[in-house]
Amino acid sequence: MPRYRVTIEYDGTPFVGWQAQPTGLAVQTVLETAIHRFSGQATRVKGAGRTDAGVHATGQAAHFDLAPGKDGGDWEPGRVRDAINFHLKPLPVAVLGCAVAAPDFDARFSAIRRHYLFRILDRRAPPVLDRDRVWWLPRRLDADAMADAATVLVGRHDFTTFRAQACQARSPLRTLDRLEVVRAGAEIRITVSARAFLHNQVRSMVGSLELVGAAKWTRADLAAALAARDRSACGPVAPAQGLYLTRVDYPDDPA
Amino acid sequence: MPRYRVTIEYDGTPFVGWQAQPTGLAVQTVLETAIHRFSGQATRVKGAGRTDAGVHATGQAAHFDLAPGKDGGDWEPGRVRDAINFHLKPLPVAVLGCAVAAPDFDARFSAIRRHYLFRILDRRAPPVLDRDRVWWLPRRLDADAMADAATVLVGRHDFTTFRAQACQARSPLRTLDRLEVVRAGAEIRITVSARAFLHNQVRSMVGSLELVGAAKWTRADLAAALAARDRSACGPVAPAQGLYLTRVDYPDDPA
Repeated sequence: MPRYRVTIEYDGTPFVGWQAQPTGLAVQTVLETAIHRFSGQATRVKGAGRTDAGVHATGQAAHFDLAPGKDGGDWEPGRVRDAINFHLKPLPVAVLGCAVAAPDFDARFSAIRRHYLFRILDRRAPPVLDRDRVWWLPRRLDADAMADAATVLVGRHDFTTFRAQACQARSPLRTLDRLEVVRAGAEIRITVSARAFLHNQVRSMVGSLELVGAAKWTRADLAAALAARDRSACGPVAPAQGLYLTRVDYPDDPA
Repeated sequence: MPRYRVTIEYDGTPFVGWQAQPTGLAVQTVLETAIHRFSGQATRVKGAGRTDAGVHATGQAAHFDLAPGKDGGDWEPGRVRDAINFHLKPLPVAVLGCAVAAPDFDARFSAIRRHYLFRILDRRAPPVLDRDRVWWLPRRLDADAMADAATVLVGRHDFTTFRAQACQARSPLRTLDRLEVVRAGAEIRITVSARAFLHNQVRSMVGSLELVGAAKWTRADLAAALAARDRSACGPVAPAQGLYLTRVDYPDDPA
């Protein structure tokens, strides 16, 4: 039974998050439903990262297994992509790419790096074209101060401060490979990369960086919050709508 | 009675266009309503360009006059911006900036250059995060061929071919200052600048450029279409949802 790897884009606004839940519609569930509709098969779609409610993706990765079709042949990946997309309509989820993967490929456990983007719109007027797509802050932030402070978090640290209480990871140690803050017009774009993240880690770090941008915290305050290893030392958690899972890397991917 | 100049962003999706019409909600009308709500004054908001239904703006310009408030003082521009934005909610229109203008400033007639962006998403999967924000074409276009052919249209020409039949301009002569086609990932971004445009000119030019990108037309075919000065020589008009009015220039603007 071939295993397929897919790259997925979604607007997180109407969903309870990636993972299936009894409280509402999950991205995972609508994908499984779409696959069932064209193939008649009940399969489990496993994602690389469990994005929370309202979080978007431009490059979520997932895998699933699919038995051959009625004609006995394996499903052609391009057909799988198109068939899922057809049955996803009008939900804001789309499969960007589909490929046959190795039988032991696991979207979650094979991943060697995850990349996120967080968008802040810091201008007086509310977002219109990017409603539900950015964290809107009506006052201008100091992006340079944020960029400077962000370097404090890069590297291997105990990220207990920036971890949701509900986080189920065994260790609070993570290695942050990249945390960059760049202004682009009225927008601040924060890009983050690591092999793995703790629950709410990106939004927790962004929420504390915002305090630096608003001159409520200094770079030293951010360093102290990290060193405290105490959830109560964290700034307010940034809202979900600014966060995007942009890419997941695997060992055999072309550079 | 002071004159105010405003810069406006809007999502064109729910509107019949910029201009007030009996058939539905216009951007101009919702701005006039918002101004009336905070000031009690009935004023006419005049825009730089009459965008069609579904066309977006990130930098539409407009002007209007406002008599002093009840306290006898002129309305402070920052307060005007905030008050309009408050009363626009939840409609997808926002005033980005507001300034006092010269009494003879006219958003339409004082403009010396208008800038548009047209976004094409040419990938197999439908748009999700950019639904209603791009022209989706499921097949990859040759952006380099489009960029090369686009130069044919730059300069002063009779644009009868690329002009809606309903166009009311006296002359079909226009000077196109800029028409650039650039690929950005799965997206093609077309930027266009001119002092003034004919009705549907940008969408008509983009529709014909798409034929070049799809290898149905050559650069020579585009040149022949222009030279024909015949509306029937135009390719299909590109849809409204990919078009953005991004900026309007005036003589005294800082460079």
